[in-house]
Amino acid sequence: MKKSLGSKALIYPAPVWCVGSYDRNGKPNVMTASWGGICCSKPPAVTISLRKATYTYANIMESRAYTVSVPSEQYANEADYFGIASGKNTDKFAKTGLTPKKADNVNAPYIEEFPMVIECKVIHTYEIGLHTQFIGEILDVKADEAILGEKDLPEMMSLRPFVYAPESRTYYSVGEHMGKAFSIGKAID
Amino acid sequence: MKKSLGSKALIYPAPVWCVGSYDRNGKPNVMTASWGGICCSKPPAVTISLRKATYTYANIMESRAYTVSVPSEQYANEADYFGIASGKNTDKFAKTGLTPKKADNVNAPYIEEFPMVIECKVIHTYEIGLHTQFIGEILDVKADEAILGEKDLPEMMSLRPFVYAPESRTYYSVGEHMGKAFSIGKAID
Repeated sequence: MKKSLGSKALIYPAPVWCVGSYDRNGKPNVMTASWGGICCSKPPAVTISLRKATYTYANIMESRAYTVSVPSEQYANEADYFGIASGKNTDKFAKTGLTPKKADNVNAPYIEEFPMVIECKVIHTYEIGLHTQFIGEILDVKADEAILGEKDLPEMMSLRPFVYAPESRTYYSVGEHMGKAFSIGKAID
Repeated sequence: MKKSLGSKALIYPAPVWCVGSYDRNGKPNVMTASWGGICCSKPPAVTISLRKATYTYANIMESRAYTVSVPSEQYANEADYFGIASGKNTDKFAKTGLTPKKADNVNAPYIEEFPMVIECKVIHTYEIGLHTQFIGEILDVKADEAILGEKDLPEMMSLRPFVYAPESRTYYSVGEHMGKAFSIGKAID
């Protein structure tokens, strides 16, 4: 029996992504966002949604560029901190000791210590309500060589990203390999 | 040392969501999509991106409504099948034995056996390239009573959703509880 929980931004799971940007003075900032996802294969694009009140919102409106750095489990505290503090009054890189590295293809910094990053050029913005959506074309994907496996693709179990449960506001690890997509369902056909 | 992997729709993790819609004759269809995410808190909204070639694309363009049903691990084969077969020439519900149930708030079916669903009214579409983005306002969230925990919120470990790794095209389970958001990072501040 299903119970109605009302109209809420509640569906599982959401990613935990750290969005990097520069302000107009070149100060690097990073904030954690879980409202986002891949939104197109060609051009490859990802969407993230930000509140206008954030420092990152103003940065990206000006620079039209951002990165997404994917934290591994070992950086859960730092990633959570990036979602609590504001770049308006804090240098979050200095505070955590993590390193801002300028992206090769866009004017935005990524977190050098995080194992996987994408570099995005804003191609569209849309104000939905409390959040504004930024669609960014992915100009490059970068990953630590240590986490690359077959066909030079990042291995989920080496990267160890984690996910977010909205409303209950809890993080969960990503667990075991379950099977190949476009494959395990063939038995049904 | 980071290696450049080029311009790809590649970032971890992506959700595995089953999008329900009716065609103009009222035939229920469902397809699996991993290009999507929550995109606004007020109004609560979720985005999914679909190729024009899909049956679901035509359905939603006409009905302006869809549901997202979240599969638990035990339905991984069915969810994968929903991403392989096309509603153009198959009744995917009949084939899997799963039950299409009409949503209460929109003209779209959800999968009764899946533990968590949202009902969405399309409020915006945007053609990015190969994929078109649909932003849906979440009019209701529903969950099986059996998976509800504290404060009547779905328990991740009871729901057991899973995630998708693009490019390597592999599914992974969601694992252990790691900590509370907006909390574990406070130690740094």
